[in-house]
Parts: sequence; C-alpha cells; structure tokens
Amino acid sequence: MLLHLSTWQEIETYLQTSKGIILPIGSTEQHGPTGLIGTDAICAEAIARGVGESIQAIVAPTINVGMALHHTAFPGTISLRPSTMIQVVRDYVTCLAKAGFTKFYFINGHGGNIATLKAAFSEIYAHLEDLHIPNAQKVQCQVANWFMCNSVYKLAKELYGDQEGSHATPSEVALTQYVYPEVIKQAPLSPEVASGHRIYSAADFRSHYSDGRMGSNPALATPEHGQQFYELAVKELSNGYLEFLNQD
Amino acid sequence: MLLHLSTWQEIETYLQTSKGIILPIGSTEQHGPTGLIGTDAICAEAIARGVGESIQAIVAPTINVGMALHHTAFPGTISLRPSTMIQVVRDYVTCLAKAGFTKFYFINGHGGNIATLKAAFSEIYAHLEDLHIPNAQKVQCQVANWFMCNSVYKLAKELYGDQEGSHATPSEVALTQYVYPEVIKQAPLSPEVASGHRIYSAADFRSHYSDGRMGSNPALATPEHGQQFYELAVKELSNGYLEFLNQD
Amino acid sequence: MLLHLSTWQEIETYLQTSKGIILPIGSTEQHGPTGLIGTDAICAEAIARGVGESIQAIVAPTINVGMALHHTAFPGTISLRPSTMIQVVRDYVTCLAKAGFTKFYFINGHGGNIATLKAAFSEIYAHLEDLHIPNAQKVQCQVANWFMCNSVYKLAKELYGDQEGSHATPSEVALTQYVYPEVIKQAPLSPEVASGHRIYSAADFRSHYSDGRMGSNPALATPEHGQQFYELAVKELSNGYLEFLNQD
Amino acid sequence: MLLHLSTWQEIETYLQTSKGIILPIGSTEQHGPTGLIGTDAICAEAIARGVGESIQAIVAPTINVGMALHHTAFPGTISLRPSTMIQVVRDYVTCLAKAGFTKFYFINGHGGNIATLKAAFSEIYAHLEDLHIPNAQKVQCQVANWFMCNSVYKLAKELYGDQEGSHATPSEVALTQYVYPEVIKQAPLSPEVASGHRIYSAADFRSHYSDGRMGSNPALATPEHGQQFYELAVKELSNGYLEFLNQD
Amino acid sequence: MLLHLSTWQEIETYLQTSKGIILPIGSTEQHGPTGLIGTDAICAEAIARGVGESIQAIVAPTINVGMALHHTAFPGTISLRPSTMIQVVRDYVTCLAKAGFTKFYFINGHGGNIATLKAAFSEIYAHLEDLHIPNAQKVQCQVANWFMCNSVYKLAKELYGDQEGSHATPSEVALTQYVYPEVIKQAPLSPEVASGHRIYSAADFRSHYSDGRMGSNPALATPEHGQQFYELAVKELSNGYLEFLNQD
Amino acid sequence: MLLHLSTWQEIETYLQTSKGIILPIGSTEQHGPTGLIGTDAICAEAIARGVGESIQAIVAPTINVGMALHHTAFPGTISLRPSTMIQVVRDYVTCLAKAGFTKFYFINGHGGNIATLKAAFSEIYAHLEDLHIPNAQKVQCQVANWFMCNSVYKLAKELYGDQEGSHATPSEVALTQYVYPEVIKQAPLSPEVASGHRIYSAADFRSHYSDGRMGSNPALATPEHGQQFYELAVKELSNGYLEFLNQD
Repeated sequence: MLLHLSTWQEIETYLQTSKGIILPIGSTEQHGPTGLIGTDAICAEAIARGVGESIQAIVAPTINVGMALHHTAFPGTISLRPSTMIQVVRDYVTCLAKAGFTKFYFINGHGGNIATLKAAFSEIYAHLEDLHIPNAQKVQCQVANWFMCNSVYKLAKELYGDQEGSHATPSEVALTQYVYPEVIKQAPLSPEVASGHRIYSAADFRSHYSDGRMGSNPALATPEHGQQFYELAVKELSNGYLEFLNQD
Repeated sequence: MLLHLSTWQEIETYLQTSKGIILPIGSTEQHGPTGLIGTDAICAEAIARGVGESIQAIVAPTINVGMALHHTAFPGTISLRPSTMIQVVRDYVTCLAKAGFTKFYFINGHGGNIATLKAAFSEIYAHLEDLHIPNAQKVQCQVANWFMCNSVYKLAKELYGDQEGSHATPSEVALTQYVYPEVIKQAPLSPEVASGHRIYSAADFRSHYSDGRMGSNPALATPEHGQQFYELAVKELSNGYLEFLNQD
Repeated sequence: MLLHLSTWQEIETYLQTSKGIILPIGSTEQHGPTGLIGTDAICAEAIARGVGESIQAIVAPTINVGMALHHTAFPGTISLRPSTMIQVVRDYVTCLAKAGFTKFYFINGHGGNIATLKAAFSEIYAHLEDLHIPNAQKVQCQVANWFMCNSVYKLAKELYGDQEGSHATPSEVALTQYVYPEVIKQAPLSPEVASGHRIYSAADFRSHYSDGRMGSNPALATPEHGQQFYELAVKELSNGYLEFLNQD
Repeated sequence: MLLHLSTWQEIETYLQTSKGIILPIGSTEQHGPTGLIGTDAICAEAIARGVGESIQAIVAPTINVGMALHHTAFPGTISLRPSTMIQVVRDYVTCLAKAGFTKFYFINGHGGNIATLKAAFSEIYAHLEDLHIPNAQKVQCQVANWFMCNSVYKLAKELYGDQEGSHATPSEVALTQYVYPEVIKQAPLSPEVASGHRIYSAADFRSHYSDGRMGSNPALATPEHGQQFYELAVKELSNGYLEFLNQD
Repeated sequence: MLLHLSTWQEIETYLQTSKGIILPIGSTEQHGPTGLIGTDAICAEAIARGVGESIQAIVAPTINVGMALHHTAFPGTISLRPSTMIQVVRDYVTCLAKAGFTKFYFINGHGGNIATLKAAFSEIYAHLEDLHIPNAQKVQCQVANWFMCNSVYKLAKELYGDQEGSHATPSEVALTQYVYPEVIKQAPLSPEVASGHRIYSAADFRSHYSDGRMGSNPALATPEHGQQFYELAVKELSNGYLEFLNQD
Repeated sequence: MLLHLSTWQEIETYLQTSKGIILPIGSTEQHGPTGLIGTDAICAEAIARGVGESIQAIVAPTINVGMALHHTAFPGTISLRPSTMIQVVRDYVTCLAKAGFTKFYFINGHGGNIATLKAAFSEIYAHLEDLHIPNAQKVQCQVANWFMCNSVYKLAKELYGDQEGSHATPSEVALTQYVYPEVIKQAPLSPEVASGHRIYSAADFRSHYSDGRMGSNPALATPEHGQQFYELAVKELSNGYLEFLNQD
C-alpha cells in the first residue's frame, strides 16, 4: 500500500488497525562509472515497496536526496546538509505523528544517512514531547539498512568476496539492474581501485577515489544477483518491521 | 534523461553542452475522497519526464513533499515547513550550481509551493554570491506550474467549467488516472462542495472543506482527459524550458 | 489609530471590540534615479494610516525593510533574507495573537515581499497551533498590495500606459511626491529603459537594469496623481479590510 | 539626510565622503498607562534625525520593533526574539557593508535591546570576515543609548529625582510629548509604583509591575522638558558619532 | 556539591529543598603572553565551586567555551557564535527547568559572555512559557561576574592601579596562579601596552592589541593575590546567590 | 599539554610541529543509582589527558554536555539537542581550523554522541570549503570511543560478562572510581535490571529503565579495575591518534 497512491480516507481507515509506516530513504550521489546516481534511492524504494506488499504496510514517498556531502565533488550529486535533513525528517514525522502514526520504519539505502537519521530521531522525540501531542511518548523511529541485512551481507561475501567494497558495490548495482534492466551501464573500470581511506571532505574523497568507487568491482553485478538481494532484503526487513511493530 | 538513472560521468558530459536541469516538485497531501495523496508529485514528475524526453534535458529526482501545512488536518498529508523547504531547495541548487548547472527549471504540481519556492530562489541567489562560486551571477531559477499553462487552463475550463474548482480538481485527478489507470478511486462525492474560503490554518481549512475538495468535482475526470492535459503541458513547458535556457 | 501612539490600556479596550490590525510593510531599496529608497515603505505606511483612520482600525508600526535582495547591488538598499523575514513576521504575529488579535491585514508596498509573506503566513499558522494558544485556529493573515488594487491599476494605465513599467513606477513615485512634496527629486532619465528581464540575482539585476528602473518613466509622476492613487487605494483597501474582518 | 528620502545615486555620492550611517532602533512595547507604545522608537528616531541633520550624516529607517519579550504580557507589545533580532541586524549591516559602509552607529531608545545588539555585533564581524567582503576588518558597530547620555541623565535627576524610575520614565515620556504634543495621554496613575524587581519572564514582569511602570512617575513629564532632553541628546550623540567616525 | 559528581537520585533529593543551581561559565581564549587560555573558565569554576561549598548549592559542569569571537585571530582561542551560545544556554536551562530547577545563577569569568547570556535569558523565558512547562513563570536566570564584585574591584585597584587593564588582567592571572601554581608562565612583556580601543572584529583586535593584552600588566600577579581575590569573590557571590534564591 | 593551561604563543609554537588536537567529549546524564552524572565526561577527560601526555599532543577543554535527550526524564541530566550540538562542534572546529589545526580527534565517552558527532563532521567539511579557508580540504575529524577499544571491551567481558550491560556499566563506573576514589557511591541496586529495549523518547526510556541502568551491574566496579581500563584505553587511543595523525 503506497501512501501516494492512497486517499486520505484510506489512510484514516488504515490507522484504525496499524500505527506503522515505512519510509524509504536513499541518496542522489555518484556511484562510480557504472552505478546509477539514484542507486541508493532505487534500492531503498524497491525493497520498501516489497516489504509493504508482503505485510500490508503503508509506504511513504521515497526521500530521494539524503546526506551525501562527501560525494559532491562529482557532478550530479545532490545532498542535504545534516542540519537540513534533521529538519526534513522532523517535519515528516511530526505531520504523521499528529495524524496518529507512532512507528516509523526507515528503510535506508545509504550508509551516509545513518548518523544524521539517528540524530534526527533524538531531536524528534524531544520535539514531539514539547508539542504535547497525544502519544508523543509512543513514537518510535528505527533505521533499517537493507545492505546490512545478515542475509544480504552473507550473499555479497559469497558472490563477490573483497570485491564487494564499500561504495558502488556490486550488490547495490545488481539490485538496480534488477529494478531497471534497461539501463545497465557499461564503462571501463580500472582494475585497481582505492580502498581503506576514511571519509572526510568532498575534495578529499575525490582525491582518493578518483572514479568514485571505494574498493568495489561493480562489473561483477548481474540482474539475477539483484533479484536475490531484493528477495533476501524484503524477507529480512519484513520480519524486522513486524518485530518493530510488535514491540512495546 | 533522468539524473537518477545516469552516472556521474554522463552528467559531466551533459554539462559540456547544457547547464540546464528540470526539477519536478510536488506535494504529499490529501486530494479529496478520490484524489491520490501523491497527485501533485505524480503530475509534476510525469510532465517533467515528458519534457525531459522531448528536449533532451536532464530531470532531477522528484521533490515529493512540499509545502502543504494547510492540509495537515487530513491524515496522510506530509509537509515541510516553509523555512525547512527553503533550506532543502537551497541545498539542491547549491550542490548542482557548484557542479556547473546554472538554469534550474522547477516543474511544479502544487500551488502551495509557489510562494516558498520564490522565497527560496531569492535566498539562494544571495547565498551563492556569498559563497563566491564561479557563475553565481548566472544562476537562474524558475518555477513553471503545469496547471497554470494556458493550454491546460483552457482545456480544463472547456471540459469542466466551474466544476474544475481549485483543489482536488478534475484536471489533476485526470492526469493521475492517465499515469496510474490501475488505481482510479471510487468514493461517494457530495454534490455540494465548499469554495471561496481562503486558506489559513490546517484546522480552519478542514472546518471549511470537510472532505478536502475546494469547489471541484473530480468525478468528471477520465484517463483520456488526463492524456490530453499531459500532452498539452509537456508541449507548453518544453517551449517554456527552451525559452528559459536561451534567455541571457 | 496608531499602535505606536497608543497606550497598552487603549489596546486592551480596542480588543474588546475588534481583533483586527493593519500592518504596513514596505522595503528599503533603490527606486531608480528619482525614486526614493523608502518608496515602498512610504506608500504602504501612508495608505495603511489612511485606511486605519477611515475605519477606526489600529495600525502597527511600519516594517520598513523587506525582501529586496535583488536590489542589493545598488547602494542604500537594505534587505532581509527570506528566512529572516519569516522569523520577523512570525514574531510580530505571535506576540499580537497571544494578546488576542486574530485578523492580520498586511498592507504591502513591495512586490518582492509577497512570496515571503505568504510563506511566513503558512509557517505561522502551524506555529501557533503548536503553541496551543487560544484562538490559534482563528488567526488569519492576508496581504493586500496597494499597487494591485483594481482602481489603482486602472488609473495607472490611463495616466501612464506602458510607461508605468514594473519598478520605480510613476504611480508609486507620484504617491511619494504627494506624501513628501518637499523631496521631489530631479535627475536625468535615459529615454530607453530595459524591461522584460525576470528577476534573479542582485548582480544580474543591475547588469540588466543599469539605473534601477524596470520599464518605467517616473518623470510622468506628479503629486496630484499621487493624491489620486492615495485616495483610490485607501478606499479600496478599507473595503478589503472590512470584508476580511467580517469573513469567518 | 534620511536614507528613505534619498535616491541610490545620492547614497553613492555620500559614500565618496563618508562611510558612516546612523541607525535608530526602538521598541514597540507598553510604557505604562500614559506612555506611548512607540515611545522608544519615537525617541530614537527623533534624536537620530536631529543628529543626522546637525552633522550631515545619513540616517537609516528606524527599527521599530526590538527585544521586548518581557513586556509581552501587556497587549500591544511586539517583540523580536533575540535570535531573530541578531539575524535582522546582521542582514542590515551586511547589505550596507557590501555597499561600502563601515561605521554603524545605532542610536537606541530601549535598554532591552542592548544585550542583543552587542551579541549581534560580534556575530556580524565574524560573518563579514567569513564572506571575504572588502573592508570587513574595518566594519565597526556601536550602540549609543540616548537615555544614558551624561547630560540627559543629569537633567533627569534634577527634574525628577527618584521618580525618574527605570521604565515609562518621565524623561522618555517628556520627549514623546515634545515630538507628539497632540497625543499627550491622561490616565490615573497610582502613587505607589513598584521598583527594584529584576526582569525575568513576561508573566513575572506583569505580576510585579501591574500597570507597566517601573518606579517612575511619568506625570511629571512636560513637552518643554522633552525639548530639553532632545537637545541635550542630539548634542551629545552628535559628538559621539563624530568621535566614532574619526577613530581608526 | 558538584552535579557531575552526584547521582540522579541525589539531585532528586536536593530538589526537595532547593530549586537553585550555579553554572560556571568561562571562555577559551588568548590571555596575553603569560595568561592561560583557560583563564576565564578556571576562575569561574574555582569560584563557583567555592560558592557551592560555602552554601551547599549544587554546581553544574563548567561551560568552558563562551563568546570570544574577537580573540579568534590568536591561535588557541575557541568561541561559540552568539546564536550558537543562545541555543546552548537554552538547552541547559530547559533540561534543568523541566527537572524542577527555577533559579539559575551563572558565575561568569568573561566580559564577552555577558551580552549573549542576557540575550539568551530573554529567549529562554519566552521559550519555557511556549513549552507550557510547570513553573515556567518562576524561572529566573542571573549572571554574576566575579571580576565585577565590589570587593574584587577594590582590591585590584589597590594592588595594581591602572595596570589592572581590561584583558589579561593581573587579577585574573593571579587567580589562575592560585589555582594552578604549577603552571605560572614567564614571558617577556613589553612595558608599553595598548588600551582604550573598543572591541570590533578579530582582525581589528589583533591589529590594535598585538600581544593580546588590553592595558594590563599581568607581571604584577602573584598566587597570594589570587587567593585574596578568590576569597573575596566567593564571599560576595555566596551572598549574591542567597539573595537571588530568596527573592520572589 | 592542555590547551586551557597554555598560552596562545605556546599554541603558535605547537602548530609549527603538529596540526593535531584531541577533544574530549562526554555527557552530563544519569548513570543509575551509583553512577556519577558526569561519568562520560570524567572518563573522556581522564583518558584524553592520558593520551595527550603520552604522546605530547594538545588536549582541548572537555565538552561536558553532549547529546543525552533520552536521559532527560531523570533529574540532573543536561543535553544539547542534536541541531545545537552540530553548531557547537562546528564552531569549535572552525575556530581551530582557521588557526591552522587540521586533525581533530574526539575522544568520546558517550554512545549517544556518536551519531550527532558524525553528522557534525559532514556539516563541517562542507562549511569549511564554503569559507575558502586554507587547508579546508585537509581537515579531518575522527571520533574515538574509549569504551569501544578492543582491549577495553575484552577486559570488560572478562571481568563482568553479561553484567557489563550498556549504560551505567561497571567499566565506566570503575574508571570514575579510579579518577575520583573519594566519591564512590553506595546505593541499593535491584538485582533485576532491564535490558534490550531500544532507545526512543526520554519518557519511554524511564518507563523501561526505572533506575537508569541498562542491563548493568555497576556494583562489580572497583577503582583497581578502573585503573586497568584507563591504562588500556590510553594505550590504544594513543596509537589510534598517531595513526590518524600520520595518515594522509
């Protein structure tokens, strides 16, 4: 059930039986020579919708742009500053909490979002208590990173070993190939690829990771792998969502 | 050409021949008993992609959530506060302007976004000059509202007369029916519908517009109408974009 | 009745019979070689006071500085950023709403203020509901632009035709001449004057509008015209205010 | 020379011989049963204009609303929050500094503004250096409180002794009577008036100062006194401004 | 009693008999060739703890970094911007006020903090009322500057006369020598030292005060003097705190 | 070498051989019936100073108050909101980076700070590039959590097994006992202690963790253990700092 394809009366009805909502969040950032700029949003959205279908949960519109300041030295990247993103997430949750939602499950496609999301959650809980809205105390936010699912992680290791890397990975590229088989990109990939340098400024990032990849070999990706990752993630996160919903 | 389905190297190439980008912006808000909550984002995105295809312009990911505070008394609505939205639009444009873009064409699906977008543009020009980025002086932002295209307006008047109304209109509902024929909604619509009351607070809005419509009869909408609106808007805004691109 | 020339006890008494207040808002910005930098504030203030007298409404102190970032390449211009102006208007309305005012009628002298004012109004309604102040739901803000009054527009067309232009117009200059006949300025005006270029950054503005005028010929202005504009605007906005006050 | 009654070309000319500007700042707040709500703005404006005339300095439009949160339990008071006021003053000074002004002399009518003004000045210096504007290092802001002029203070002591008090004082009321002899207010003033309680919240203020006065007897004020205060303040602050202008 | 060396249950018990808390606030800024960068925090902390012991009041952790933007041209200085510091102080007081504290006594070691602290207090009172927390109206904040104690001032005059100066003073250096006798610094001090120039930007400050001192001769300081200052300040501020606590 | 016990000239000298600085950051929050409210700041400060001594690195004043909103339902807790903390950390790093520091090593005593610190780092890198300060690209921030040192973790497991828990742990209590043996607290600890519930709002936290502990048995702590933890952490983080300093 997709929020944007529902009417407000359908949401009113939904709230009679569930207070939970799934919010896909991605990023719009370079993913190396063959990765799509929308990779993180595409993956998060596809999986979130899969989860939503499998367990009849409502899925909010995807937050397409996240915290990717370290990628902004590559053209096409768009990023919120963390302080902006905190306000954005606060506005989303505040509106929905006033309407009665209390369980916010963010299915996330981008490691760079995690810190800011967690900071936002802390800010939000305090803000909602300050607003004195009913049920403020019951509001719970959780971030679920599809790429950190045990089953996903295990498969990626099996298929790619060290060539999985940590950005523009074959696993995420594979998932986008499964979702968009018509836009599989081809580009020469140097066999050597940097890895191991931590993330600091955008200029520093580009000076160390010249084509945007971090230790990955996305040439290993196939749409069939993508389907496997998709199915594993949907299954694991569906369970994760249900657990989240059922905890007090 | 869609930004999220491109690689950063494709964007680098694109920038050699064009500095323009199209940014669809919608809203996530109630649209009456039969209108989709995502109506404004769906329309803006579909038209923006149509424009992008017709004139080989790049299209950014859709800003799904806009300024809809006055609709927040209906469940399912999500809104940014204007001050948040200014920061969001500032972050988008700043990232892209640093990469070399100078012409920002926002294809907008929601009247409630216009004021905040214009305020954001003013804030952005000054901000970019303060940053001393090259070409700051050349950056230009424009908002193009598909529902205010002459051709669209004229057709809506022809088809619906006064029943077009001003929110949850048959024209926008028709366009979503064209895009998503599989989710056409049916719900009883009271023949009487309020109109003419200005927009103030969310509570005030709901007290005057009890089912969310403003003077409209979306039951008149058909997917065929939607296709007509789509084609008119794509044509008119394609021309609008090219004019914008070509002005100094 | 002017707020700044009243005592707090007089305001307390006033609130027993009316919840309405008029807030003049202008700008401090270049108005071409012969227009006063305070033109927009002077016009808004004069008309607001005229309206206040004619219908016994209270008039707040004039907001002299508005959103004029696009004029800041000309010396003497002072502008708030839109995000600052939203906070300013929020602070004004919040103080007055806590005291019991619910109807805020902004008489505006500057087109550049409109978008930010409207954005501010949306932010304010939500803010007041979050504060849980009594009557939050009844608070209504409206912007009334004197230069867009039908009667004013018609007279300007009659007197000046296309030479009215859109900035440093003869109509607004005339009005300042009526208010301050002792400071009518003389300066050479080139017969050619640019027009039609949209407003973007301050540097861009000045590069297109080298003396600050936009398509106008303020040499046509006379104090007598100014008086006519004043009287028309006062009459039309007095009616506008009363309608606003009386609507639910 | 008044900024709002000048043209931008006159300001351009002025800047060739002086980089100084006078900014009157007041407040819009209760001043007891007989004091005008605009007292602080009226006094600051009148004196600033007097100073401007006596030494050919330019005077900016008056900042009518300042930091008066502690008076907001009395109707008619309007206040900026300190964090808003810092942004406002920053915007004013930034615009003018970019145009070439470097000496900002705030003639202040309200004790409650002092702390926030000084905080703003610190914030501004750092901000201007961050912007890398020419002459950032030369920018100097000063607050000059007319009511703290030695000559003013001495006369107030002579005329009123302890009945000068510290808010809604006879000296400031006298000055407004001199400026606006037509709006001298009459109201019963209880002979007892509280004093000595420090300023905390708005509610606390009103609970201690029930009619708004702090230890003052404004019934002693006369327009003739007001003229004396005006002349002393203009003389002393004219000298103060010149010293400020001439220091390195 | 030190907050950071207490348990939450001890604080709960404390609140049954007192609603007061002492908050030391200093600065981290250059203090000339022989003054410690932490001088202002060291003095405030030592005195605050002395006061806390003498009257059984709880002392919060020291705010080590304050508003010292004007010293930032000297390495080692760290400063908050005033707008940041307002938020910091707001967060401190809000947390503690929600827990039941109502009397906030800031023992301050740095003149540059005073304006921003006072601005913060005003912002806080309004904020707490907006939050509708119980006792919001009773919350009172006060800044007590140890270096402005009458007894301290008098002793400094006696011991140092004009060589006390106004920054990197012998009195504050003496106090740090008393607290940290093991880190007394020796460095050549030019006999001439600038004084009398007001404080503006950081670059301007350093250009006038080349070694960081303002008219002072810290070579006169001794640890024995420091002890005297300490004892005087503790005594005077202990009385000040008790008065503050006992006033309504 | 402690920043607050240095002079600015000593810092100037230090910068000739090192661009690194250690910043201890803790929290002021409840730590169960026997844990000190300052536990996290005490641990971070002690270890940071140990590291600084062992490798001649400079140590900044401790940030005593961090992000502890979830503990604010217990009296004595003070927290910054994440958005405030981002500004604070930004101000610290900006001042020091302007002075020439490029390597910022935050020794952290509180898990709740991690997300906000990382968000702040991202914001800072972008901010410094916007300021065009020299070496902006070289600025690197890292958070090092003493309690997550391998050696610390291993010892805690050995000594306490599952009774280590995750808040008010015996390891951190032990460390404070080593630092402050004179304030070891005694209080009854219920043998049952909740664990496993995630962290959401402050009210939710207290409802699940009634005495503030999360699965821990701090009664196991001894000052001798504390010394062991201290020495392990100092050793491991000294190495960590040197690696950080030496990486490009």
